[in-house]
Amino acid sequence: MSNESNSNSLYAFESLESNVRFYSRSFPVVFEKAAGAILHDENGREFIDFLSGSGVLNYGHNDPYFLDEATQYLRSNGIIHGLDMATPAKRDFMECFNAIILRPRGLEYKFQFPGPTGANAVEAALKLARKATGRHGIISFTNGFHGMSLGALAVTGNRYYRNAAGFPSAGVAFMPYDGYWGPDNDTSEYLDKVLADASSGVDLPAAIILETVQAEGGINAARKEWLQSIQRICRSHGILLIVDDIQTGCGRVGNFFSFEFAGLSPDVVLLSKSLSGCGLPLSLLLLKPELDVWRPGEHNGTFRGNNLAFVTGAAALRKYWMNDALSMDVTETGRIMSERLQQVTQANRTHRLSVRGRGMMLGLDCSTGKLAERIVRKAFVEGLVVERCGAEDQVIKLLPPLTIDEQTLQRGLDILQKSVHASA
Amino acid sequence: MSNESNSNSLYAFESLESNVRFYSRSFPVVFEKAAGAILHDENGREFIDFLSGSGVLNYGHNDPYFLDEATQYLRSNGIIHGLDMATPAKRDFMECFNAIILRPRGLEYKFQFPGPTGANAVEAALKLARKATGRHGIISFTNGFHGMSLGALAVTGNRYYRNAAGFPSAGVAFMPYDGYWGPDNDTSEYLDKVLADASSGVDLPAAIILETVQAEGGINAARKEWLQSIQRICRSHGILLIVDDIQTGCGRVGNFFSFEFAGLSPDVVLLSKSLSGCGLPLSLLLLKPELDVWRPGEHNGTFRGNNLAFVTGAAALRKYWMNDALSMDVTETGRIMSERLQQVTQANRTHRLSVRGRGMMLGLDCSTGKLAERIVRKAFVEGLVVERCGAEDQVIKLLPPLTIDEQTLQRGLDILQKSVHASA
Amino acid sequence: MSNESNSNSLYAFESLESNVRFYSRSFPVVFEKAAGAILHDENGREFIDFLSGSGVLNYGHNDPYFLDEATQYLRSNGIIHGLDMATPAKRDFMECFNAIILRPRGLEYKFQFPGPTGANAVEAALKLARKATGRHGIISFTNGFHGMSLGALAVTGNRYYRNAAGFPSAGVAFMPYDGYWGPDNDTSEYLDKVLADASSGVDLPAAIILETVQAEGGINAARKEWLQSIQRICRSHGILLIVDDIQTGCGRVGNFFSFEFAGLSPDVVLLSKSLSGCGLPLSLLLLKPELDVWRPGEHNGTFRGNNLAFVTGAAALRKYWMNDALSMDVTETGRIMSERLQQVTQANRTHRLSVRGRGMMLGLDCSTGKLAERIVRKAFVEGLVVERCGAEDQVIKLLPPLTIDEQTLQRGLDILQKSVHASA
Amino acid sequence: MSNESNSNSLYAFESLESNVRFYSRSFPVVFEKAAGAILHDENGREFIDFLSGSGVLNYGHNDPYFLDEATQYLRSNGIIHGLDMATPAKRDFMECFNAIILRPRGLEYKFQFPGPTGANAVEAALKLARKATGRHGIISFTNGFHGMSLGALAVTGNRYYRNAAGFPSAGVAFMPYDGYWGPDNDTSEYLDKVLADASSGVDLPAAIILETVQAEGGINAARKEWLQSIQRICRSHGILLIVDDIQTGCGRVGNFFSFEFAGLSPDVVLLSKSLSGCGLPLSLLLLKPELDVWRPGEHNGTFRGNNLAFVTGAAALRKYWMNDALSMDVTETGRIMSERLQQVTQANRTHRLSVRGRGMMLGLDCSTGKLAERIVRKAFVEGLVVERCGAEDQVIKLLPPLTIDEQTLQRGLDILQKSVHASA
Repeated sequence: MSNESNSNSLYAFESLESNVRFYSRSFPVVFEKAAGAILHDENGREFIDFLSGSGVLNYGHNDPYFLDEATQYLRSNGIIHGLDMATPAKRDFMECFNAIILRPRGLEYKFQFPGPTGANAVEAALKLARKATGRHGIISFTNGFHGMSLGALAVTGNRYYRNAAGFPSAGVAFMPYDGYWGPDNDTSEYLDKVLADASSGVDLPAAIILETVQAEGGINAARKEWLQSIQRICRSHGILLIVDDIQTGCGRVGNFFSFEFAGLSPDVVLLSKSLSGCGLPLSLLLLKPELDVWRPGEHNGTFRGNNLAFVTGAAALRKYWMNDALSMDVTETGRIMSERLQQVTQANRTHRLSVRGRGMMLGLDCSTGKLAERIVRKAFVEGLVVERCGAEDQVIKLLPPLTIDEQTLQRGLDILQKSVHASA
Repeated sequence: MSNESNSNSLYAFESLESNVRFYSRSFPVVFEKAAGAILHDENGREFIDFLSGSGVLNYGHNDPYFLDEATQYLRSNGIIHGLDMATPAKRDFMECFNAIILRPRGLEYKFQFPGPTGANAVEAALKLARKATGRHGIISFTNGFHGMSLGALAVTGNRYYRNAAGFPSAGVAFMPYDGYWGPDNDTSEYLDKVLADASSGVDLPAAIILETVQAEGGINAARKEWLQSIQRICRSHGILLIVDDIQTGCGRVGNFFSFEFAGLSPDVVLLSKSLSGCGLPLSLLLLKPELDVWRPGEHNGTFRGNNLAFVTGAAALRKYWMNDALSMDVTETGRIMSERLQQVTQANRTHRLSVRGRGMMLGLDCSTGKLAERIVRKAFVEGLVVERCGAEDQVIKLLPPLTIDEQTLQRGLDILQKSVHASA
Repeated sequence: MSNESNSNSLYAFESLESNVRFYSRSFPVVFEKAAGAILHDENGREFIDFLSGSGVLNYGHNDPYFLDEATQYLRSNGIIHGLDMATPAKRDFMECFNAIILRPRGLEYKFQFPGPTGANAVEAALKLARKATGRHGIISFTNGFHGMSLGALAVTGNRYYRNAAGFPSAGVAFMPYDGYWGPDNDTSEYLDKVLADASSGVDLPAAIILETVQAEGGINAARKEWLQSIQRICRSHGILLIVDDIQTGCGRVGNFFSFEFAGLSPDVVLLSKSLSGCGLPLSLLLLKPELDVWRPGEHNGTFRGNNLAFVTGAAALRKYWMNDALSMDVTETGRIMSERLQQVTQANRTHRLSVRGRGMMLGLDCSTGKLAERIVRKAFVEGLVVERCGAEDQVIKLLPPLTIDEQTLQRGLDILQKSVHASA
Repeated sequence: MSNESNSNSLYAFESLESNVRFYSRSFPVVFEKAAGAILHDENGREFIDFLSGSGVLNYGHNDPYFLDEATQYLRSNGIIHGLDMATPAKRDFMECFNAIILRPRGLEYKFQFPGPTGANAVEAALKLARKATGRHGIISFTNGFHGMSLGALAVTGNRYYRNAAGFPSAGVAFMPYDGYWGPDNDTSEYLDKVLADASSGVDLPAAIILETVQAEGGINAARKEWLQSIQRICRSHGILLIVDDIQTGCGRVGNFFSFEFAGLSPDVVLLSKSLSGCGLPLSLLLLKPELDVWRPGEHNGTFRGNNLAFVTGAAALRKYWMNDALSMDVTETGRIMSERLQQVTQANRTHRLSVRGRGMMLGLDCSTGKLAERIVRKAFVEGLVVERCGAEDQVIKLLPPLTIDEQTLQRGLDILQKSVHASA
């Protein structure tokens, strides 16, 4: 990789794009092509992808089946942009989702397509919860991350993002996530006390929003019992439970929904990211039928009918979710990853490293952001694309495609291991 | 069109989709294919499209050149989902935009891709304005429409949407748009007075956000002089001027930017809708270089790198904006439409009808929502897809593709005229 | 007046009191005694009082009858501080107010003592209006002034005060007061349009709060017709009308209530300032019986039962409001003042001076704050205590006690006239 | 006590006063006279006062020395209402306070008189903190109580009061008070974690506001070590510490300031209630000189110069605070009360009763509001005025005058004991 050609090729980004650009700084190459778990830059160099477009590419890049479906649809003059007009592509997606995902799990939800991004879904969910309950407040958790628009930002814990709003957020109280206050405190008990106490300063909220594994927040996986407590608390106070499954859903932690292991039945579920299968913007809000208090068009959005994404999204459901093969693979691959990471932490006594997460959403906690940065930079030089998360960017977040073959996975883990050693 | 097959084919939408669905109520058919200005439903019936996906399809449906480019990109294993990593597709789009649009107009802006929807752009713009100025307030205008997420909703005038938030919006004052207080009052003078008056109750804002023609608000076209006054007021008080060109841009009213006719130089310009050329979600925030106070990643969003949209977006710029042919066509077609509409209003003395708008964003004001609804329903039965706007849905909004051929245009206008007569 | 003794005697204020102190800067003497319309400083110097404690001393300083009543009450071991426990003093005050003020005017209100300050009353009124209507918004007017606590500040127009909160206010829209947009625009029509327009950005509010003459805002007197329009608009939209009569009430503009001349019947009326007769903190909220949705203790406040103030307040009602003698005096004295002020403005062609106001709340508008400051400073040196108001402190506010004798009044006006001449 | 005369005498309150009235329901008699710790109703019946006007009458009712000073001042034609003009009465109060209270304790503060009520002081403190730090947030604690105006209400925990605002409060996060999360958790550690964690969702606040003993919140006394931790946390994060000593100050818990026992040095201290000595409305904000960023008049208020209260307030300082006799008495009396209460709890095994508090601010926790209500009602019938507090009104709050003689105290405690027995 020649630095010259590099700096050359990045010139347009450095000169034309706002300072807000982020990944083109961490990964200063121009990525041109990709397939499965492999990215190629303009100079033909290969990178193993442990980022998966921040959880968007659970099925890897450019799955040929999805591309075929998309291409065929384009060739057929299918409706690309449909607002929320009825189209066969949208109908097929809803029917597939209902038949393949919901029905077999005994779940009954209505579909809302709130716009193509996860933040659109979060915004719609918060509006719906307030409208349906007549209450103002929302409870979110420490280290929660839900998006950048004003409503979604208000339930996001990170000050770096919050401060960028230039306006104080309102209507949200943050409670300690599972494990936040040491191993001996069940923070759901604190939440229950605060809600039951008419003088706690925390008003009875419309909804509680949570991720079952906090991704951007540092790969914090909530325990099954804690999640069940939260649902119980919601039920007992008439509070809606919103599960933000945008990054954790679509099989990332094993089952299609991340909350299946705990047997939850959330009032609202948010999906996006890997939903379209190949990276096309798509987002879905599932709501319990009795909550459907929307009036026609009350929440809308130009791109809420991305039909090309419906086509590939349906393809993804058909290819991967007709049986539980992928789920089992994810569990197995997650186990392999976890073991390798444990070895890495045990081999490195210089630093306090630890492993965290669930399924194929795993984190290597490096204690400090500096160490994590050194490791990740080194890994990139060695051909691995991986990013950091957590309040101090101290956790290396491993999100390989769920479909990665074991050899590529091991090669990626080798690079990571080597980078840890080199940075110690 | 058989009602049975219809109700049948729409069953999935009625049973699975939330009550929030809107267009599948107004247009109760399943649209399957489309090309140019023509939509086809599942039963093979043809509709002329005067909706253009709410301004997304300025170049018509499924332009073969755009589809070719897209298909070729998919076949090449190009990066589809890129976050804000550097890719050739993104670079090409930025360079095209810079060379074809900005440079020839003597404009210098930096690019921010804030997420794929217009609301993402609005949210980013408001955050940037507050951050850059250190002020809290935003001024928006009566009947302004800017989106559904909490920040964008706060600058949107319509109570139907606002109330759905279940939470009072903050930080925004609404001022009367051009013409709002009768023909004899220049409302920019009122704005100036309120800003200059230290005791007006309106704090000095970070920014003023406006559409040069209010689309959803009822096709209200601001006069050149008024827009110039607003810019002057902004300059004199150190307020940023944000032009929301999401629906009015990309040639809809003649020039690429809607504000060119007034010679404005906004601090921030927002584009989306027709930007990708064929309906793929894409949004762009242009900001003056000196405003670029963002820190890396402060505003982000999963789908801010929709590379397939960059590919078709660049194709659109290349095909339509290397010269001013399209602009001239729009002006001419707009003139034709306007004349026909004037004839319609003059022929119908039963109702107070009037024509409003600029370029190919025209409105037929029917005074009451009821009348407008009757006309639009009749038109749909006759094969014309067209929608309503305005506070009472009293204005029929005509947004045919800019590229519509004259014969189809006239056929569409014939249907409209007939529907007006039938409803009178 | 020796500067030495002065600076000496003020040392404690300069060294111990916060920079927020205000009047001890404008009037840098130590006021020791007072009676009627005359103040005495520590050095025995006499000042004519055209400030009346910012409208608190409508009946002048230290009315002997009020002091007797107070002294007697103290001697009898009457309850001084009563929270909202029942006491004879409170009962007597309510019964007097009902018999002397309300009943003869055909008004029926319930009494709420929301705390001893005007701001307490404003806060309680806004809470009640929101609670009673279930709406969030409040409409206030340009140049309105209602107090310094967060809720009252939100309906106050002045940026100097608003900015001191360090927090953006919410839930309030400001509309143009009578005369704000030139003589030819009836701003109540604009208000009506904005409220009737479902897309104006101004949500239907819980209440409209206004002063019939804006005191701090620059002595802006609303016309009778405008006030009637506002009340009509309130009725037609189900909006509560709150009249803040804190400074304009208790006879300041002629009648006991300032809105009697327009025949208004506000839903809520706020009184304070001169209510206790002699400057003891007391505030009263009158609410229509059907609005009384309070639950016990929902709004409280330690000092809501200032019984000494009830005693003197009842004395004031008995002494001055059993007949209309005072009202007629105020009208006559106001006429005299107004004429003299008109002469002053006509005699001074150097500056654009004008007279404004109603009853004995009159303003001499000096166009610029600088000129007004020069005049007021000069007047103080000459023995007249008078202050400024308006967005730029450009209006000299004349509020002599209603009970001032004509000779003292003329002496005060002589000083003012001389000061104007000297400053021209 | 005849019910007839009672209902008769209360008729005016029932018919004229708003439903918001509270104490005239709990104590349905008309209180006419009072001296020391004894109240008399209209029928001459005597009540022992364990309420002390909610902490306003620490020195008992109608102290003859204070009344003499007041009467003399009135007779001398002293300024009663002074805004913030300089007067000898105000100067004397400030100099006394400085010499008697601040200097001997090595404290240096500037004085702000923010209006006559505690809520005025809270509002001013929050504004000052935000202005001085440029931050938006405030941290308050579970069960904190600070007042009814919108800003003060936002830092008040109780939902009954909060909901009455009809508007969601903003800018405040509630943290667990000392002891809130069980005996084994030091909640200051949780606070520290949340503040240090850049992703906790709690922004770095301008200030932390607290009571060292929460009065309305249920007589929760914070430990010395906890208070010291909070101050340390404030210092380390640059957060201002505001101690609301409105009810706990003026000797209620022993020392003049409630925080002396922990050696705190708050940035802002709020006093009111017993400050004037005899129940006249007065409030004081003490601020560290380096925080005095106010500009002249930025926070004002009509009744901020209640000179009669300055006179009696100075008298109280002179009579009670020149030495530590009162402090020692309070400690001793508090000990006696506490012991008697312990006996009561031990004698009643039917209910879980417990004693809480510090100095002469003590609570008898009855576990349920129902039991507490029965006891308090019974006590009133027996001649003891005492009220309840806590989220469920489950705590009987004992606030006798600090100056109560032992015999009266014991009589009051006898009644309480008897009432407990009768209610068990």
